[in-house]
Amino acid sequence: MKIIYCLLLVLGLSLHGHASRPKLMPMPTSVVFKQGQFRLNQHFNLTIAGNFDERIRGASARWLKRLSEQTLLVLNPKQIGDKNAIFKIHITKPAKVALHEDESYQLTVKDKQIVLAATTDIGAIRGLETLLQLLQADTDGYYFPHVEITDRPRFPWRGLLIDVCRHFIPIDVIKRNIDGMAMVKLNVLHLHLTDDQGFRIESKTYPKLHQLGADGLFFTQEQIKEIIAYAANRGIRVVPEFDIPGHATSWFAGYPQFASAPGPYPIETKLAGLDNAPTFDPTKKETYTFLKAFFNEMAALFPDEYMHIGGDENNGRQWNSNLQIQDFKKQHNMANNHQLQGYFNQEVRKILVQNRKKMMGWDEIFQPGTSNDIVIQSWRGKKTLFEAAKQHYPVILSHGYYIDLLYSAKDYYLNDPLPTNHGLTAEEQQYILGGEAAMWAELVTAETIDSRIWPSTAAIAERLWSAASVNNVADMYERLASIETQLEYLGLSHQKNRDVLLKRLTNGGDISALKTLTDVIEPMKGLSRRKQGTTYYTYTPLTMIADAARPDSKVARKFEKLVKTFVSSPTGETAIELKTLLLLWQNNDRLLQPIINQSPSLHEISIISTHLAALSGIALDMISYLEKDKKQADNVFSEQWQQQTAKRIQDARLPRGSVEISPTLLDAFTPLVQRVLQK
Amino acid sequence: MKIIYCLLLVLGLSLHGHASRPKLMPMPTSVVFKQGQFRLNQHFNLTIAGNFDERIRGASARWLKRLSEQTLLVLNPKQIGDKNAIFKIHITKPAKVALHEDESYQLTVKDKQIVLAATTDIGAIRGLETLLQLLQADTDGYYFPHVEITDRPRFPWRGLLIDVCRHFIPIDVIKRNIDGMAMVKLNVLHLHLTDDQGFRIESKTYPKLHQLGADGLFFTQEQIKEIIAYAANRGIRVVPEFDIPGHATSWFAGYPQFASAPGPYPIETKLAGLDNAPTFDPTKKETYTFLKAFFNEMAALFPDEYMHIGGDENNGRQWNSNLQIQDFKKQHNMANNHQLQGYFNQEVRKILVQNRKKMMGWDEIFQPGTSNDIVIQSWRGKKTLFEAAKQHYPVILSHGYYIDLLYSAKDYYLNDPLPTNHGLTAEEQQYILGGEAAMWAELVTAETIDSRIWPSTAAIAERLWSAASVNNVADMYERLASIETQLEYLGLSHQKNRDVLLKRLTNGGDISALKTLTDVIEPMKGLSRRKQGTTYYTYTPLTMIADAARPDSKVARKFEKLVKTFVSSPTGETAIELKTLLLLWQNNDRLLQPIINQSPSLHEISIISTHLAALSGIALDMISYLEKDKKQADNVFSEQWQQQTAKRIQDARLPRGSVEISPTLLDAFTPLVQRVLQK
Repeated sequence: MKIIYCLLLVLGLSLHGHASRPKLMPMPTSVVFKQGQFRLNQHFNLTIAGNFDERIRGASARWLKRLSEQTLLVLNPKQIGDKNAIFKIHITKPAKVALHEDESYQLTVKDKQIVLAATTDIGAIRGLETLLQLLQADTDGYYFPHVEITDRPRFPWRGLLIDVCRHFIPIDVIKRNIDGMAMVKLNVLHLHLTDDQGFRIESKTYPKLHQLGADGLFFTQEQIKEIIAYAANRGIRVVPEFDIPGHATSWFAGYPQFASAPGPYPIETKLAGLDNAPTFDPTKKETYTFLKAFFNEMAALFPDEYMHIGGDENNGRQWNSNLQIQDFKKQHNMANNHQLQGYFNQEVRKILVQNRKKMMGWDEIFQPGTSNDIVIQSWRGKKTLFEAAKQHYPVILSHGYYIDLLYSAKDYYLNDPLPTNHGLTAEEQQYILGGEAAMWAELVTAETIDSRIWPSTAAIAERLWSAASVNNVADMYERLASIETQLEYLGLSHQKNRDVLLKRLTNGGDISALKTLTDVIEPMKGLSRRKQGTTYYTYTPLTMIADAARPDSKVARKFEKLVKTFVSSPTGETAIELKTLLLLWQNNDRLLQPIINQSPSLHEISIISTHLAALSGIALDMISYLEKDKKQADNVFSEQWQQQTAKRIQDARLPRGSVEISPTLLDAFTPLVQRVLQK
Repeated sequence: MKIIYCLLLVLGLSLHGHASRPKLMPMPTSVVFKQGQFRLNQHFNLTIAGNFDERIRGASARWLKRLSEQTLLVLNPKQIGDKNAIFKIHITKPAKVALHEDESYQLTVKDKQIVLAATTDIGAIRGLETLLQLLQADTDGYYFPHVEITDRPRFPWRGLLIDVCRHFIPIDVIKRNIDGMAMVKLNVLHLHLTDDQGFRIESKTYPKLHQLGADGLFFTQEQIKEIIAYAANRGIRVVPEFDIPGHATSWFAGYPQFASAPGPYPIETKLAGLDNAPTFDPTKKETYTFLKAFFNEMAALFPDEYMHIGGDENNGRQWNSNLQIQDFKKQHNMANNHQLQGYFNQEVRKILVQNRKKMMGWDEIFQPGTSNDIVIQSWRGKKTLFEAAKQHYPVILSHGYYIDLLYSAKDYYLNDPLPTNHGLTAEEQQYILGGEAAMWAELVTAETIDSRIWPSTAAIAERLWSAASVNNVADMYERLASIETQLEYLGLSHQKNRDVLLKRLTNGGDISALKTLTDVIEPMKGLSRRKQGTTYYTYTPLTMIADAARPDSKVARKFEKLVKTFVSSPTGETAIELKTLLLLWQNNDRLLQPIINQSPSLHEISIISTHLAALSGIALDMISYLEKDKKQADNVFSEQWQQQTAKRIQDARLPRGSVEISPTLLDAFTPLVQRVLQK
C-alpha cells in the first residue's frame, strides 16, 4: 500500500502543481490519488441510500456543518436528501454499536461525483471523517482531490479510557473528547467511574454511593444516558468500569460494612501511596447481594455487552489482617489472596452473566480456571497480552498507551499490540482485540485534560486502525500536526488553554517570554512528577508551569531536525534558522527573569531559563565556528571545554517545578558537539 | 469617594514601593488602601459565622480553589470552618435570590486578619469577588494589600440577557457565563428562551413546542433546574422570557392553530426581515387556555418572581389580514392593534398573577391603563425609561446595552440609566431598577458568544453597580484589561477561541500575520453586518474573519494613545513605539498576502491589509518628518498630499468581509496629519 501511495503522491504533486497534500490520520488501508479535483460550491448536496440506522442523518448534518464552517459555503441542512445529489452515501445495513461491527468503507472522489459506500452506517461515519480530512484549498476555492480509498480497521477495539475519579471530568469535556475520538476513528470510550478518590455515577439503588462517595461531582444517570447516546451517534461504545475489590474507598464512604475492616472511610484525598486503602470483603454473602443489586442497576443503564470490574492493585493487606477472611481461605483451600480474588471475580462474573454482560478487567483477573468469556486489559506489559492470547482469552493492550505519563507520540505510536516478534499463531492473534489509550486523572483537571489526551491519542488511534507497516515516525508527526489543529475545531482545548494557564502564572502579565520558554520545556515524564517528594492531593492546584507545559515539544523536534540537517550538510539557510532559534532562547532569559521575579509561582524555573540561554550561547559559538572555513585554535573546543559543555547539558537536564528542558532539544546538542570536535 | 481613593493610592504606591495596584471592577463605593500587606501562605484558612444560606459554603470552597489555583498554595477545603481562622466571614441573615435583596458588604484586610461582614450571604459572595481581585504578587509571594472597603450596588437589577434561540447556547456555555457574571457582580440572567428560530425549553405540557419548535437543541427541564441552582448559588436570579404574541414562529411549528393565520409554520431559518412572521391570535379563548397551561408549567419551574413575555415588534400584519380579528377589534371598540395587544397583555398578565408572578416585557407593553405591577424593559431609547418612571412603572434599561451590536466598551460604559439630565424626582428615580446587557444571538455561536459578551459586559456591570461618578474611561479600560484576563480563568473563551477561528480560516496554516491584522480590525458595528446585502440564515457559518475579529481593538487604542502623546510632546521613546507598530503593519501585508491567496475565505480582506500597510507607510513618513528638526520642502506635505491622504484614510474605512480597520486607529491619523501640516 505504502509504495503505491507514495508514488502516486509524488506524481500527484507534479501534476497538480501545488505543494500541499491531504494529511490523513489514521492512514487508510489503501489510498490512490488521481489527477483532478472535485471543486466545492454552495450547491454541494448529499444523499443517503440503502438500509441504515438513523444516526447517519445526524452524522451527515454535523459533517455538512463542519464543511460549511471550514469553507464558509452556506450549506442548508436541507441539502441533505436529494436523490440526485452529487455526494452519494450507500449503506447496506444498520450498524449495532458493538464489538466486531463492520467499520469498513470505500470512498471515491471523481469529477462532479463523490461516492461513499459502506456496509454499515458506522463505516460511513468513518468515511465521512476521511473525506473531511481530504479538504484542500487553493486560490480558486475549496476542493477534494480525486481519490480512491478503501479502508477498514486493523483492530476492532480501539479505545480511550478516561478516569473521571481522581479529578472529575464534566460531561461537556467528555463530549468534546468523544468528537475527537470520532475524528480519529476510535470506537470505545472506557469510563473509569469509581476509585478511591470518588464515586462518579449516580446510583438510585444505593444513593450513598454518589452522595457520600463524591464531593458533589458525579454523572447523573440522565447524563450517562446522554453520553452513551452521544457516543453511539458517532459509532462509539461506552464501557463502564467499576473498580473492585481494591481502588474502592469511595464505595465504603457510604457503605463501610462491605470493606474488609471496620470504617469509617472518608473519600481518599491522597493521589498515591495508598497502601492501606480498603478492599471489599470477598467472604461475606452480603457483599455479593450488594454488588448484585448495584450491577443489575448499571447493567440496565449501560447497553454495551462489556462491563469492566477493574480488579487491579489489590495488595491484600486488609485481607491479611482480617482473621475471618483468613479462616475462609483455609476452609476453601485457597493458598493465597490471588486465589481469593479469583473466587471474588467468579462471583462477580456470575452477576454479570445473569445480566448478559461479559466481564472485563485488568491483568490481575487473568487467572487459571477463569472462564474464557472475559476480556483482559493488559496494563503491566505485553507478557500478559501474549499469554492471554495463547490461552484464547480476548485481550487488549494498554501498557505503553498510558498517556498520563506524558511520553512522546513516537513512543506510543511504535507500541504495536502485535510487534513482529509476537510469536503467536494466526488463530492466537485474533484474540488480541486492540488497545486503549489510558488517561489517568491524578494530575489533570477539566482545564488541562485535553492537552494530555491530544494529540498523542491520535497517534495511538492510527496504530490501532492502520496497517502495522504504517510506521514512519517523521510522516506521522507531519500528519499529527495537522490533525492536532483540526481537533480544536471541535471545541477541544489542548492548544488554546495553555495561554490561560500562563497568564494565571504571571498574574495577568505579559506572557510572550514565558511562551518562548514553555515551547521547549516538558512536564516530567513517567511517574517522576508524583515521586518527586511532593504529596499530591485531589485539591493540589494543577495550574503550575508543569500543567501548562505539554509533552513532546514541537519546537524541540524542529531544532533536532535542523541540527541533523546542519551537521550533515550545512547550508546558510539551515544556519540562519538555527541561529534564529538559538538567539531567541539566548535573549529570552533577559526578558523572562524580571517576570519570573514578580511571579512567585515561577521562581523554580528561573534556572531552567538560564540553562537554556547558556546552552544557546554555546551552540551559537559552535555554529559560528562551523560556518567558518578555517580551523580555529584548539583551545576553543578543548577537552576541558568538552567536559564543561557535557556538564552544562547534564545540569540542564535537571527538572525544576516538575518541568524539564525537552530531552529531544538537549540530545540535539550532542551531534553539534561531535561535529565541532571532528572538524 | 474617587478623590480619597486616588490620593491614598498615590500615597500607597510610594509607600509600598511597587508599581502595580489592585484593579477592581466594578469599583466599590469606598476603597481606602492602607500601608501594609496580608501575606498569604498555605495555612490560610477561613470561617463563616452568623446566620446564612448554605450557598456561602459552596461559594467559599470555590473561592478557596480559585485562590489556590492563582497562588499555587495547597489549600485543603478543610481549611474552611476553623473558628479561629484568619479570614472571618460574618453574615447576618440568609439571602433570598430576589430583587432588592441586600448585596452590601464591608471588607477589612489588616495584618494577619481579614474580615468580610455582610448582611446576607449574597453580599458576602460579592465581597469574596472583591477580595480575590485584591490579590497581588511580588518576589516574596502573594498578598492582599491592607484595605478598608465598603460597598453596595447603585441599582438592584443588573442583568445579562442571553438569546438562546437564534443560535442555541448550551448549558456549559451558560454556566461559565454565570461565573463571569458573578465575577463582576451582575445578579440577573435573563434567558430569552423562545423566538421565531427556536423554542429552546422542554415543555411537558405541550411537547411539540420543543420537539417541533427546535432542531433538537433545547434545554431539558432538568437542565433549566441545573442553571437556576447554579445561578442561585452565585446570588443570581434567572428570569425567563417567552416572547409573545410576535417573535413566535417556533410556537406554531407544533401548534399552528393559535396563530392568526393558517399554517403550517416551519421553524424560521432566516435571521432578519421577518415582516410576515406569524402572531398569536389574541381573540380566541383557546389561545389563553393554551397559554395558561403553558405558563402554569413554567411558573412552577422558574422560582423568580418575574416572568418576561417579550411583547416586542408585532407589526400587526397577520391581525390586519384576519377578518375575525378585525371584527373583534370593532366589537371591543379598539382603535388599533396597539390596543388589541394591550388586551392580550392584560389576559396574559392575569395568568401570571394567578401564578404569583409579575409580568415583564419590552417597551411595547408599556401602555396607558396597564397595571403598575409590571416591569418595562426599555430597548428603543431612554424616552420610555423616563416616561415609565414618571408614571411609577418599574423599568430597566437595555437600550445602549445591546452588546451584539459590537460597539466599544466606552460607549456602553457611558450609557447611564440616570444621566445628569434625567429630570426625574427622587421618588421617580426609584422606579429605574437598573439595566441589562443584551446578547442577541443572530450572529454568534457557542464558539464566539463569549467574545461578544466579554469584556464589554464588565463595563456595563460597573455602570450598574458603581457610583455615577466612576466614569473615567481611561481608568475603566485599564481595569477592564485586567478583568478580561481573569474572566478566562473561569473557563470563558473570549480571547482563546480567536486563534482556533483564525486557524480554520488559513486551513491550519500559520496564523501569525493574520493575528497582526486581526488585532486592528473589528467586526462591523450596529446592524450594518446584517444589512450588507447578505441574508443570514441560522445555518450560515459564523466562522468568518468577522467572527474571529473582536470589537474595540486594544491595539488601536494603544496606537491612538501613542499618537496623542507623540503629537503633544514627541519623545524618542514614543516615536520608537509608534514606529515599531507601523513597521509591523507595513511589513505584515507582504507576509499575509500569500496566505490570503491560498485561503479563499480571506480573499475579501486582502485590500484591508493593503490599506493598512499603505497608511502605515504614510504615517512613518510623517513621524520621520516630525522627528527631524528642519522644515522639509512644502511639496512633500502639499495640499494634494493632504487630499490624497484624506482619501486613503476614507478608502480604508470601507468594510470588507464584514470587518473594518478599527475606526479608532484610522481616526488617530488625523492628529498626525494636523501636526505635520502645522509644522
